[in-house]
Amino acid sequence: MSVQPSLGVCYFPEQRDESEWQNDIDLMVSMGLKKVRIAEFSWALLEPKEGGYEWGWLDRSIDLIGAAGLEVILCTPTATPPKWLIDKHPDILAVDANGQPRKFGSRRHYCFSSAIYREKMSGIVTAMAQRYGQNKYVTAWQADNEYGCHNTTRSYSKYAQKAFRVWLKDKYQTIDRLNAAWGNVFWSMLYASFEEVDLPNQTVTEPNPSHVLDFYRFSSDQVVSYNKQQVDILRAHSLGRDMIHNFMGFYHEFDHFKVGQDLDISAWDSYPTGFLDMFAFSDEEKARYFRQGHPDIAAFHHDLYRGCGNGRWAVIEQQPGPVNWARHNSVPLPGMVRLWTHEAIAHGAEFVTYFRWDQARFAQEQMHAGLLRPDNAPSPAYGEAQQAAEETASLPRAETTKAKIAFVFSYDALWLYEAHPQGAQWSYPDICFRWYSQLRLLGQDIDIVSSEMDLADYDLIVIPSLPVVDDALVEKLKATQAIVLMGPRTGSKTPSVQIPENLAPGKLQTLLPLKVTQSESLPPNVSETIAYKGGSFKAGVWLDYIDSDLTPLAVNALGAGVLYRNDNYLLLGTLPEADFLNQILRDLANEAKLPIVDMPVDLRMRHKGACTYVMNYGQAEIKLNENLAGAKSEYLVGTANVPSAGVSILGEQGQGNK
Amino acid sequence: MSVQPSLGVCYFPEQRDESEWQNDIDLMVSMGLKKVRIAEFSWALLEPKEGGYEWGWLDRSIDLIGAAGLEVILCTPTATPPKWLIDKHPDILAVDANGQPRKFGSRRHYCFSSAIYREKMSGIVTAMAQRYGQNKYVTAWQADNEYGCHNTTRSYSKYAQKAFRVWLKDKYQTIDRLNAAWGNVFWSMLYASFEEVDLPNQTVTEPNPSHVLDFYRFSSDQVVSYNKQQVDILRAHSLGRDMIHNFMGFYHEFDHFKVGQDLDISAWDSYPTGFLDMFAFSDEEKARYFRQGHPDIAAFHHDLYRGCGNGRWAVIEQQPGPVNWARHNSVPLPGMVRLWTHEAIAHGAEFVTYFRWDQARFAQEQMHAGLLRPDNAPSPAYGEAQQAAEETASLPRAETTKAKIAFVFSYDALWLYEAHPQGAQWSYPDICFRWYSQLRLLGQDIDIVSSEMDLADYDLIVIPSLPVVDDALVEKLKATQAIVLMGPRTGSKTPSVQIPENLAPGKLQTLLPLKVTQSESLPPNVSETIAYKGGSFKAGVWLDYIDSDLTPLAVNALGAGVLYRNDNYLLLGTLPEADFLNQILRDLANEAKLPIVDMPVDLRMRHKGACTYVMNYGQAEIKLNENLAGAKSEYLVGTANVPSAGVSILGEQGQGNK
Amino acid sequence: MSVQPSLGVCYFPEQRDESEWQNDIDLMVSMGLKKVRIAEFSWALLEPKEGGYEWGWLDRSIDLIGAAGLEVILCTPTATPPKWLIDKHPDILAVDANGQPRKFGSRRHYCFSSAIYREKMSGIVTAMAQRYGQNKYVTAWQADNEYGCHNTTRSYSKYAQKAFRVWLKDKYQTIDRLNAAWGNVFWSMLYASFEEVDLPNQTVTEPNPSHVLDFYRFSSDQVVSYNKQQVDILRAHSLGRDMIHNFMGFYHEFDHFKVGQDLDISAWDSYPTGFLDMFAFSDEEKARYFRQGHPDIAAFHHDLYRGCGNGRWAVIEQQPGPVNWARHNSVPLPGMVRLWTHEAIAHGAEFVTYFRWDQARFAQEQMHAGLLRPDNAPSPAYGEAQQAAEETASLPRAETTKAKIAFVFSYDALWLYEAHPQGAQWSYPDICFRWYSQLRLLGQDIDIVSSEMDLADYDLIVIPSLPVVDDALVEKLKATQAIVLMGPRTGSKTPSVQIPENLAPGKLQTLLPLKVTQSESLPPNVSETIAYKGGSFKAGVWLDYIDSDLTPLAVNALGAGVLYRNDNYLLLGTLPEADFLNQILRDLANEAKLPIVDMPVDLRMRHKGACTYVMNYGQAEIKLNENLAGAKSEYLVGTANVPSAGVSILGEQGQGNK
Ligand SMILES: [Zn+2]
Ligand SMILES: [Zn+2]
Ligand SMILES: [Zn+2]
Repeated sequence: MSVQPSLGVCYFPEQRDESEWQNDIDLMVSMGLKKVRIAEFSWALLEPKEGGYEWGWLDRSIDLIGAAGLEVILCTPTATPPKWLIDKHPDILAVDANGQPRKFGSRRHYCFSSAIYREKMSGIVTAMAQRYGQNKYVTAWQADNEYGCHNTTRSYSKYAQKAFRVWLKDKYQTIDRLNAAWGNVFWSMLYASFEEVDLPNQTVTEPNPSHVLDFYRFSSDQVVSYNKQQVDILRAHSLGRDMIHNFMGFYHEFDHFKVGQDLDISAWDSYPTGFLDMFAFSDEEKARYFRQGHPDIAAFHHDLYRGCGNGRWAVIEQQPGPVNWARHNSVPLPGMVRLWTHEAIAHGAEFVTYFRWDQARFAQEQMHAGLLRPDNAPSPAYGEAQQAAEETASLPRAETTKAKIAFVFSYDALWLYEAHPQGAQWSYPDICFRWYSQLRLLGQDIDIVSSEMDLADYDLIVIPSLPVVDDALVEKLKATQAIVLMGPRTGSKTPSVQIPENLAPGKLQTLLPLKVTQSESLPPNVSETIAYKGGSFKAGVWLDYIDSDLTPLAVNALGAGVLYRNDNYLLLGTLPEADFLNQILRDLANEAKLPIVDMPVDLRMRHKGACTYVMNYGQAEIKLNENLAGAKSEYLVGTANVPSAGVSILGEQGQGNK
Repeated sequence: MSVQPSLGVCYFPEQRDESEWQNDIDLMVSMGLKKVRIAEFSWALLEPKEGGYEWGWLDRSIDLIGAAGLEVILCTPTATPPKWLIDKHPDILAVDANGQPRKFGSRRHYCFSSAIYREKMSGIVTAMAQRYGQNKYVTAWQADNEYGCHNTTRSYSKYAQKAFRVWLKDKYQTIDRLNAAWGNVFWSMLYASFEEVDLPNQTVTEPNPSHVLDFYRFSSDQVVSYNKQQVDILRAHSLGRDMIHNFMGFYHEFDHFKVGQDLDISAWDSYPTGFLDMFAFSDEEKARYFRQGHPDIAAFHHDLYRGCGNGRWAVIEQQPGPVNWARHNSVPLPGMVRLWTHEAIAHGAEFVTYFRWDQARFAQEQMHAGLLRPDNAPSPAYGEAQQAAEETASLPRAETTKAKIAFVFSYDALWLYEAHPQGAQWSYPDICFRWYSQLRLLGQDIDIVSSEMDLADYDLIVIPSLPVVDDALVEKLKATQAIVLMGPRTGSKTPSVQIPENLAPGKLQTLLPLKVTQSESLPPNVSETIAYKGGSFKAGVWLDYIDSDLTPLAVNALGAGVLYRNDNYLLLGTLPEADFLNQILRDLANEAKLPIVDMPVDLRMRHKGACTYVMNYGQAEIKLNENLAGAKSEYLVGTANVPSAGVSILGEQGQGNK
Repeated sequence: MSVQPSLGVCYFPEQRDESEWQNDIDLMVSMGLKKVRIAEFSWALLEPKEGGYEWGWLDRSIDLIGAAGLEVILCTPTATPPKWLIDKHPDILAVDANGQPRKFGSRRHYCFSSAIYREKMSGIVTAMAQRYGQNKYVTAWQADNEYGCHNTTRSYSKYAQKAFRVWLKDKYQTIDRLNAAWGNVFWSMLYASFEEVDLPNQTVTEPNPSHVLDFYRFSSDQVVSYNKQQVDILRAHSLGRDMIHNFMGFYHEFDHFKVGQDLDISAWDSYPTGFLDMFAFSDEEKARYFRQGHPDIAAFHHDLYRGCGNGRWAVIEQQPGPVNWARHNSVPLPGMVRLWTHEAIAHGAEFVTYFRWDQARFAQEQMHAGLLRPDNAPSPAYGEAQQAAEETASLPRAETTKAKIAFVFSYDALWLYEAHPQGAQWSYPDICFRWYSQLRLLGQDIDIVSSEMDLADYDLIVIPSLPVVDDALVEKLKATQAIVLMGPRTGSKTPSVQIPENLAPGKLQTLLPLKVTQSESLPPNVSETIAYKGGSFKAGVWLDYIDSDLTPLAVNALGAGVLYRNDNYLLLGTLPEADFLNQILRDLANEAKLPIVDMPVDLRMRHKGACTYVMNYGQAEIKLNENLAGAKSEYLVGTANVPSAGVSILGEQGQGNK
């Protein structure tokens, strides 16, 4: 499917004087925006008293927006149940791991397992769906807002406990099976019935990782079922409209692939500078990219959520200036808002909507920029968005490029390592990000996929780490001609978090005849020196001790193998530092005949159809050489001199400005 | 008013054997002490059972002290309600932000909003006032002890919640006004009545900063009303006596200016080495001043509490040696106790009383020094106090010097930034301290004032940051001929924590035609290079993006202005590092014709009447040159060679030893 | 008593398929193992329903083990009360310092003060004792597992509160005496009855250290009485069997000397690499000894628990490979398991049993190595254990060498400093470990003793710090001819945590005529330069200001004494850095005519009878020179070239291989 991407904006008419609405909408149209997202968080406005709906303001704003030719994305307001509802049913509140209910006064204060909340949520969603489901201006719905944000996926309420027991019974059928799966013979943890199973918090020392992982899976499933409940109601009343949810960045407590299956479009909220400050970047990186965000933050999530959405995805909240919620909040370099917009479109976004139209003068997010300043003058992002809209409209319609590299990302793996770390330095999100980044530095397009997805049409499959490998995956790997690189701990656990009977890498031993007999986790100041193809490299964090008759491709100082290959399958027993990782990926990409373009550290590239987007995340201009630009291209946007925060878009001769 | 300052001591006769009292008192007299503070924390002694008062020991000790010619400062013991009272009314206990009641077993365990505690407090205070109000030896009262110490201002009890709702109703009258002031349309935070408003703790993510700030203001007002309740009772029974409270250092959770309005004397407890270890000094500073305290700790509070007390102030607890409560507790350099005493008197203290007479051999503060050692021998401070008493008595009576520089400090600003930081490096207490310190290094006398006070008679007004600027202040600034320097974020908020409709600096735009269109907060490793008057300097922490037709006085590397001036008004859009700040303040002081005396880093100066006090906080002797000492002066105390921890006092020819 | 040491293993037959038992046991026999510890944590297996015992599996496994000629050490399973018991009596659960009950789902979830738990514990112990007390294969019992591990000694339950009041009444008899002992006149903390005394948690600021210390002592006593209750039951039914408990490393919340008095054998669980990562070693040390553990970790505990056990002690859990519970978990260097085994035997261990036989594939400790890998193949430790068993059997039977150096360690001192630190850098465990380590680097054998033990037959008595010094100790020190070195804070407190009336060092002033008049605690970046015997050294952390007519042996830069000597008694007023400490200890050891052997940093030595064990903890081979090896010895094990992780054992000519 090829869609002409469009831009839009998140709008909160209820926070504006109604006299401003028409002017706001006229400006949106004049800027070239096409979509307006509204009604998020508006429950207290729509239902100020129980059952006393007030639709007037929303009716009027939808009418005005639609009449101007803009499409409405309508949000359910269920991320913010109002005070009267909480006071009537305090059991709606989520409970933290210390057993304390979280209070009203911000957002996302509900427990996914609260039956009364499911009922009340269903009530407001049904009422909205009935009223606006057939509205001609409403072309899409957003269910709730940022599931799980502020660590709200996992609630330790009595309702969660009850629902967890039901979930376990459904999964294991008999308590003996659960006891066996969790190994509860250990430490006398045996249960006589499902009613004995508590949530795994507040234990004296670490709880059973199998118990914890099942609780994490249950908690994710509660989000999936909550989302499905909303989406089912909406679909029933609003046929043909796209169902959307807005995911967050670097947030992992529920399985976005699973939620994505129930949506039409997996959208996400892209805040590159905010995420820079919240994620584990080095101080040097945080300084270098202070006003740009790290060059791979947005791209990683674009590629991930495109996978979650089976190809249909969008950026539904695009940062338009400083945010308010990071530890330090920068003003993006001039140009970054336009750059982020093009980066999203290059990766196949159907649309990009900015968050938000105006910068509110009040409440928690008053320091969060909008396209308008708090005094209603245009902010710097206003002009950049307008330019991006024009440029986007001028470019040829193109399919999203399907990558040659599949990059396997697993929420279940992430939770498993969280439940069962074995080493304080091991961070699955960090590993995935760093591996992804090295592939981008080699100029590659990447599809981030789940291990359950089709892996057939790829030339290189990269699996940074995947502890649970099932038969279906083994079969897919057996069937592929692609080169498959797997990182440490792959195949090291059964689905119940046990060590495979034949040791790691478990079922993968049919592809790779080797066994991990011991494993160790390394502190920051202990690393391994590795010999690989005549070079000397560093690795650390994790070290597997491997038994095999294979000749290793890389060995540590004691001659022990840390990289083995059989056929097209490779397994790493340690985590390579950046240059070592780059070398391995380069060698494999070369072997897979993927064209390598070495990126300057601040530059990134992405192909879309016949277009090549080049983005400069650095603080200085970069001149594209022939290797980077290709020989036959013409510049559809920009030139060979890409300024700081600049974008150039290359296409084939005669392709531009159609 | 010119008062001959005197020295004294805090005494706990109930912790001594009665046989020791007379000897203790004789020693106090022989040392030259004039005041004795007693009865602090003695509730369990005075009322061992409910209503069963035992005044005997206190009667006898007051009699002995008074008979020796010493004045008694009598304390109410309400910082330590006894166990029988807590057991009978556990609801007296303060509740922490996690919702847990704080237990008996130390001190300050009451909630300011507990009605039952107000009643019981009133009971013991009334009983004491009745018994001792007319006692001829009692010349002053201290109400309670160190309000708010150990973070006890803000209690999250159900009584606090109830009182907060009353306070809000009183302030806003209607819930719609509250909703509008807080911007509760955001995130569906709208309330239908005051009864729906909770305390702003335990929310999922940050609560509304307007909500938080009002809770902080309410909590401060509870302290004010509590203090007033005590003082009113005491005044009613003890006419003519001075009402005192003892503030702490670097403690800010209530408005000391407001409490000070209800007192006769704002006293404070000066522990320079303890505060050094608890405040945000660098490791280098902590090592350099390990046994002295930073040279500006005591002075800052002297100048602040003199402002709170409208000129009448004192040091009621002066550190006499090591304390017990810092992370590391040094033995002050020989001389420091005398130095601290003179520093206080130089700033206008009416009296300095040492804490405490004897070092107790037991309980929490057994490692806290006294004038006597635990074996009743004199400690090193004994001789220093005696010397300070003699020297003080020998000096001419003098008015406290009114400074030419007003330095605006605001508790409300501090709370606002706490509720709404926007940048992790931003610390209002740190900023104020560093700006104050640079002025002291230029040899300046400083008055620390609130923005509500009279600013008329100053030549330089320094406002490090003041987010809320009201019409009254604008009028005062309009009226002044002084040079006014304002730091970043000044004028950036309305009183309800909203962005002004005309953007920052809000109402100040009538003085300075400029607008802050964007702001960013910087991490430690990102700084701005600033060009100012031909020099290159550094700034950081905060950066405002300013729109103005004015020509900036200082610009960053991109040419954007960070310091603007209109008339006598200057606004900084960033936080200068020390040498840059020094240069700006130097230039403005010069312009204001304030005589600048460049202080060696360890030396400080303060004028009192015709006397100049010079204190050496360093570890080496400093020789005063003519610039420092002045031409015509003679040394009333010390010489031109000021030893480590030494003091020299200069006066005009023929003025000494009167 | 001279015992031929033997090796063994911890076995969990209930976690194995019964078909594997016989093969497991045959392998144990063939390896040369002699002892098998079983049934730990097996309560849910033995009593799956209340009162419904199932002994079959245990009967059968004991029979098989015994029939193979192996001795059974039988464990009570009381560290893991089963779920049905917790659900029936949730009051069994321990309560943390925040007042929250700790939940089921790991281990050690009981409160030592729960009367109902004491009853239920007694029930299962009695049942086991009755069934197996006379079993011919059962030669020893282990009571419970790792008392206090995971900070479970101190529970803040209502039952603990009640028991604490009884304990206090028993100790003080009248509340006035308690008030006096604690100094409760301070801060109005006076109690009218024991029923008013709470536990010392959740106070506003620090609670009274006397209150805290008594609570810590009470908590320790609860462990002592709990252990005694178990041991008494077991002894009653199982005469002649050794009573054992397994202590942990670097764990101090109860008095191991006191628990040891009720045991026959004080055993401990030795995990050198795990402890390395959890204790306060420097990053450099953690890197250097990452796969070996610091050379003194095991030895320190061997010497300590030998003292606790009055000579009879063992390692009942010996690490056989990586563990799962440290922040980073290394694979020990090849040879370390054998080295650790010999180190234990050199220090006099009666036996060493490895934890555990097989590496479980499930639950919390699935990454904890065993002698078998998870696939039942031998792990690297298997061969090392076998070799150690052979070597041990080949060596002559020998007495444990009684050391010439007594090293006084005090749990009460540790708690006192915890309750009353006065300086954040002061760490009693760290001080003791560092002093011990310097003695080992001088090649010394050491007995770690309590201050209540006999000190008669030593030549050097080292007391790193001992705040409470009683008359009995003073008498013992008066009587000794040994040189006595005491560190800072020794004699600084009464048993109730008060300053002695005559100041520190209190009663020791009869031995050393001096007084500590002031004390200070130093931060990391402030240190003292000390002159000692012509050399210049560094000291820090603590500095006493000492008054004395004695001439100091060492002085700081101001000439103040920091080391004083009178007769054979020396007192240090500061903490010397490593080389200074080494010099002092060297001088005293020389004077005491203890032969000094300077150890290379990675090498350690221990004598047992006529044997000298030499262990290389380094990563490189060390060649023993004549000084190290002695002139007349022959190598019973190894050679003069001790490889990395190697052991050499020297004996007198003709002594080997008996
Ligand atoms: Zn959002
Ligand atoms: Zn005080
Ligand atoms: Zn263990």
